[in-house]
Amino acid sequence: MAASRVRTPVCVLGLGLIGGSVLRAAAAADRVAFGYNRSADGVNAAIADGFDATTDLESALIRAAQTGALIVIAVPVPALAMLLGHIARLAPECPLTDVTSVKGAVLEQVTAAGLRARFVGGHPMAGTAHSGWPAGHADLFRGAPWVISVDEHVDPMVFAAVLDLILDCGSVAVPACSDEHDAAAAAISHLPHLLAEALAVTAADVPLAFALAAGSFRDGTRVAGTAPELVRAMCEANAPQLLPSLERSIKLLTAARDSLTAANSVAELVNHGHAARTRYDNFPRSEIVTVVIGERDWRRDLAAAGRAGGVIRSALPVRDSR
Amino acid sequence: MAASRVRTPVCVLGLGLIGGSVLRAAAAADRVAFGYNRSADGVNAAIADGFDATTDLESALIRAAQTGALIVIAVPVPALAMLLGHIARLAPECPLTDVTSVKGAVLEQVTAAGLRARFVGGHPMAGTAHSGWPAGHADLFRGAPWVISVDEHVDPMVFAAVLDLILDCGSVAVPACSDEHDAAAAAISHLPHLLAEALAVTAADVPLAFALAAGSFRDGTRVAGTAPELVRAMCEANAPQLLPSLERSIKLLTAARDSLTAANSVAELVNHGHAARTRYDNFPRSEIVTVVIGERDWRRDLAAAGRAGGVIRSALPVRDSR
Repeated sequence: MAASRVRTPVCVLGLGLIGGSVLRAAAAADRVAFGYNRSADGVNAAIADGFDATTDLESALIRAAQTGALIVIAVPVPALAMLLGHIARLAPECPLTDVTSVKGAVLEQVTAAGLRARFVGGHPMAGTAHSGWPAGHADLFRGAPWVISVDEHVDPMVFAAVLDLILDCGSVAVPACSDEHDAAAAAISHLPHLLAEALAVTAADVPLAFALAAGSFRDGTRVAGTAPELVRAMCEANAPQLLPSLERSIKLLTAARDSLTAANSVAELVNHGHAARTRYDNFPRSEIVTVVIGERDWRRDLAAAGRAGGVIRSALPVRDSR
Repeated sequence: MAASRVRTPVCVLGLGLIGGSVLRAAAAADRVAFGYNRSADGVNAAIADGFDATTDLESALIRAAQTGALIVIAVPVPALAMLLGHIARLAPECPLTDVTSVKGAVLEQVTAAGLRARFVGGHPMAGTAHSGWPAGHADLFRGAPWVISVDEHVDPMVFAAVLDLILDCGSVAVPACSDEHDAAAAAISHLPHLLAEALAVTAADVPLAFALAAGSFRDGTRVAGTAPELVRAMCEANAPQLLPSLERSIKLLTAARDSLTAANSVAELVNHGHAARTRYDNFPRSEIVTVVIGERDWRRDLAAAGRAGGVIRSALPVRDSR
């Protein structure tokens, strides 16, 4: 199956932890892979490690256009608009993906830049506490879920090209609509950050708390150690999806407080929480094998399969329906 | 120093995970150690492992009274009142401690049973996900903090006897008043449980959330896997101390919601949370070596030292001030 894949070249824009790891993984999979980074430090480090990198965005995009490369946007969200303008000018026909953790906001900007038709968003669920080119490695994504967008506009051939890159990186692909991805990320990633911050602040004001704190407090506040600007960036960029989950948690905790006050009971919250965690532990994982990319309802079928725990572990057949 | 300690015999009431481990650790430290358990299963398992155990509470208490044993209460809170009645009748002069996670409620019951003068509460901060005699082992407490009460009523000689047992178990002793212990436990243990339950319930209702959930969600909901009756027991027994921490967390999250809605910012919560977690990471630990048990203000001095991160790692000198 792998031998029949189109070996699309890969052009990575932004060579930090994620982008730098994509560049390495693509090269390790015998792709032509080249990258751009704004700072010379990252580029020099990449070149020293034997990779093809430049600080010249224009030349990178011209090369991408000439070779029909898949462009991977791996810059922080604030740099996105500028980058999209250059892509629209120099490489508007290239298949395009990204590795940003918030999908709706990126899709909006891509649409505004007139690049939506060739864009399929992505989000590898991998990372470390470190950042920058030196922190990356070719195996960063191995075995990790990597969300691939199946929004209504998604083109089958671009989808297949992005899927091939994800599989080349050793990841399993989870198909999802952008808004559902963002709602899920709010509940499983952004909300936990806010709860951890609230726990840390609450305990800090209780004498003796830090003196006794051990396992469950350390685990429960671990993500409060993340740099504040990173936590703010992801929570604030995903505010529309984060607010309902935050609201729901506040309601659950308020109901528990009322019940503890009035009836000395936290039974409802605790029983539901345990049941939910048990459901998570038993959540079924399955492999998606029957969908043909480009056939009728393929995007809807993939979204439903992803929601039910399905992942793509090897290339799916493609019928170009354009 | 160890050679000069009084080798008080130890009578452990309740041979579950904690009590069973205390019995093993005391025996391993060459103490005379014997135990009582209500169910024959636990007793038979302990005897099969070579320990001195019985289902006959009366005989265990008579033996404790005859040998001046330190009695360690290691039964669940609901069984406490019955047990205290028997102790008051058969072994009222024995030094007495407990290993329960809520100290104020236990002290109340001990006081009601007329046993306060010989009681010094304790709480080893150790445990596993498993329970019962087979789950225990002699090294369960090694290196773990073990809170020892320094309430106003605490007798120097009983305190010294309990401290010796804690050190024999390989723990470091953290001196604390019962109410401060309970407030700290609420903030670092009981509140994290409720936050984890709320997170699990919130995510369970978001399609795709479980499909994408990984590291931070798994860590953030780990304690939601604890048996609901255990979580309820500890939260509900500590309601007076838990409510202020729960209230504070709700206020922090509500303020973050309002700020995210009105100004698309979670800066205040995130900055404070990160600062608090950083303070925790840098919380100073020190060894308490200068306090003489029984000297003027010794309880107050120990409570202050514990609050500041001090722990007792080896026996302190004792002056019997009675």
